[in-house]
Amino acid sequence: MITETNLRVRYAETDKMGIVHHSNYYVWFELGRSDLCREKGFSYLEMEDDENTRLVVAESRCHYKSPAFYEDELSINTRIGRVRSRSISFFYEVVRPATGTLIAEGETKHIVTDTNNKIRTMPQKYRDLLTTDD
Amino acid sequence: MITETNLRVRYAETDKMGIVHHSNYYVWFELGRSDLCREKGFSYLEMEDDENTRLVVAESRCHYKSPAFYEDELSINTRIGRVRSRSISFFYEVVRPATGTLIAEGETKHIVTDTNNKIRTMPQKYRDLLTTDD
Amino acid sequence: MITETNLRVRYAETDKMGIVHHSNYYVWFELGRSDLCREKGFSYLEMEDDENTRLVVAESRCHYKSPAFYEDELSINTRIGRVRSRSISFFYEVVRPATGTLIAEGETKHIVTDTNNKIRTMPQKYRDLLTTDD
Amino acid sequence: MITETNLRVRYAETDKMGIVHHSNYYVWFELGRSDLCREKGFSYLEMEDDENTRLVVAESRCHYKSPAFYEDELSINTRIGRVRSRSISFFYEVVRPATGTLIAEGETKHIVTDTNNKIRTMPQKYRDLLTTDD
Repeated sequence: MITETNLRVRYAETDKMGIVHHSNYYVWFELGRSDLCREKGFSYLEMEDDENTRLVVAESRCHYKSPAFYEDELSINTRIGRVRSRSISFFYEVVRPATGTLIAEGETKHIVTDTNNKIRTMPQKYRDLLTTDD
Repeated sequence: MITETNLRVRYAETDKMGIVHHSNYYVWFELGRSDLCREKGFSYLEMEDDENTRLVVAESRCHYKSPAFYEDELSINTRIGRVRSRSISFFYEVVRPATGTLIAEGETKHIVTDTNNKIRTMPQKYRDLLTTDD
Repeated sequence: MITETNLRVRYAETDKMGIVHHSNYYVWFELGRSDLCREKGFSYLEMEDDENTRLVVAESRCHYKSPAFYEDELSINTRIGRVRSRSISFFYEVVRPATGTLIAEGETKHIVTDTNNKIRTMPQKYRDLLTTDD
Repeated sequence: MITETNLRVRYAETDKMGIVHHSNYYVWFELGRSDLCREKGFSYLEMEDDENTRLVVAESRCHYKSPAFYEDELSINTRIGRVRSRSISFFYEVVRPATGTLIAEGETKHIVTDTNNKIRTMPQKYRDLLTTDD
């Protein structure tokens, strides 16, 4: 399953080069993760606030293929990589649908922790939701 | 007393206009507040984490006089406006010392709350430190 | 005419207080301005890139009424204040429609410049579009 | 040669998890690159504005080892990876000197372009400065 998140590039996301600053792609990946959780049937907010479970970013990487510009309408395509008891990874593609251009692709790896930053196992409820394929 | 905070403009703080995005001035004002607290003899972090006291921003304003550019070396001059039992205000000037240019001036007004966002009175210890003139 | 912009609060927009950092409201106001231009029949991007006309922020202010949280669905309601030949102002309200809560209200004032930061008059085409009431 | 950049974590760089948002590490890496250029004897700003040469980010990655907190005093240690005629890479370590903690390590790879985003060769002057070891 791939989750599609649509966004329009914000002025504040550009830099003096006239293109989107590369750090913002990681913020967009995060939007993709939130939407993926929502599509899988739960809210990342509730998991964090109600279930003492956080997905702390352990690694992130991005390969920038083509620049993005102010007011570009982009899609973030997010899918789950590997789900383990104490870690999870996600893959992302940023595309400009109007031109079919691949803007970037990336990955984030997460450790499951409690709200005190201690590693814990992911509650079975979320693991089931994340690994259900539909 | 005026507290001086020195910074160099970051690439990520610029936008496609080639100048610093106006939202970043509020981040710089915050650096000024932190440094002012430090000069007054306490850490804003400790006040927040150890004393259950936050200075939530209730109002902010900025008057932009002259643009700031990547790698500009700027000073934020911060001073306290009015200290009351449950509120406090700060004034800021952003200047480029090399050219004597006034870049911006602004103000923030804060409400004193606990970490549950309830209004509270400022602990006397901090009120004394903030109002001591030296 | 009021332009409504809908957004969901991003994780990266929160701070350690657990609420949206106050600087982000100015980024949201900017989204409101872009959408207002679009509703008025033109693209801010084209005005800037094709017509050598920029609306540089000269003043900004925000009054924060109630905190906003991660994943909050908010509306930015934007309207034009005063349009003059070389300046323009906008007013904003940030509301949480689900609860009817007023989150913040603010204003920005802009100077019309060319891409070299020289003050110029707003092209009549845009002035007409901005002042047409519908 | 390793370039050391010192910074104090900004409030706005934290998120609701109470730690620095992972996207900010890439902004810090950029500070490291600017300082490295300065130590090597040139300004990244001048290279970009005067010599029509940009180092566009083609890839970025970060491995987060230990969280960073508001007001942490950190050092970014930056060194050059490989310099080629049309590309360059940098390596970074983020450390908290007070505790000797490794906070993160990362890398960025850059393509040399002109200001129209066309790939070009790096001017010999900069290549010499970047590859001189001292």
